[in-house]
Amino acid sequence: MQRVAFCLRLKPGAAEAYDKSHREVWPEMLALLKRAGISEYSIFRRGELLVLSMRVEDFDATWDMIERDPVNTRWQKEMAQYFEPMEPLAQGERFPMMREVFYLA
Amino acid sequence: MQRVAFCLRLKPGAAEAYDKSHREVWPEMLALLKRAGISEYSIFRRGELLVLSMRVEDFDATWDMIERDPVNTRWQKEMAQYFEPMEPLAQGERFPMMREVFYLA
Repeated sequence: MQRVAFCLRLKPGAAEAYDKSHREVWPEMLALLKRAGISEYSIFRRGELLVLSMRVEDFDATWDMIERDPVNTRWQKEMAQYFEPMEPLAQGERFPMMREVFYLA
Repeated sequence: MQRVAFCLRLKPGAAEAYDKSHREVWPEMLALLKRAGISEYSIFRRGELLVLSMRVEDFDATWDMIERDPVNTRWQKEMAQYFEPMEPLAQGERFPMMREVFYLA
């Protein structure tokens, strides 16, 4: 199981609405995340900075499955209003990934 | 058990040395972290941004214990060269804490 994290940035003023949406994530979206193999999924926020951390067996296979699903398309369409454009991605990245440089069980 | 995270920022150019230090954390420092009640401790880095996430029963009691220990004093003295000053803290914060706005087990 991999521990993975990536970071996103909210538009100024979007934090409250973002938080509210995430207290009320649609049951079918939660079910999709679980079905796609995500566990221990936390979203942490300070100001406009978001860090999304999760466990997955295979990050790309999981996100391929999520992004193929129309439930996710609808969810992302609602969320898009809150996000700044992603920072420049390295070759092969689908999100601005963070590298785990330390781990203590 | 609480899931907590906070963010720190490295000085430009310090990432490689920071990563190297964290591949070689002193055994006595690892032992202190465990003894103080930290588990599932990951440090994620992208560029100069660090996010430190962990599980603890009582965050303040754990960090009081860590900060009282001379092993930590020596460790932080070595690490201090890598960090930018912390961003402004809210009342009662000891680190720039991130709030968990979503969690899926």
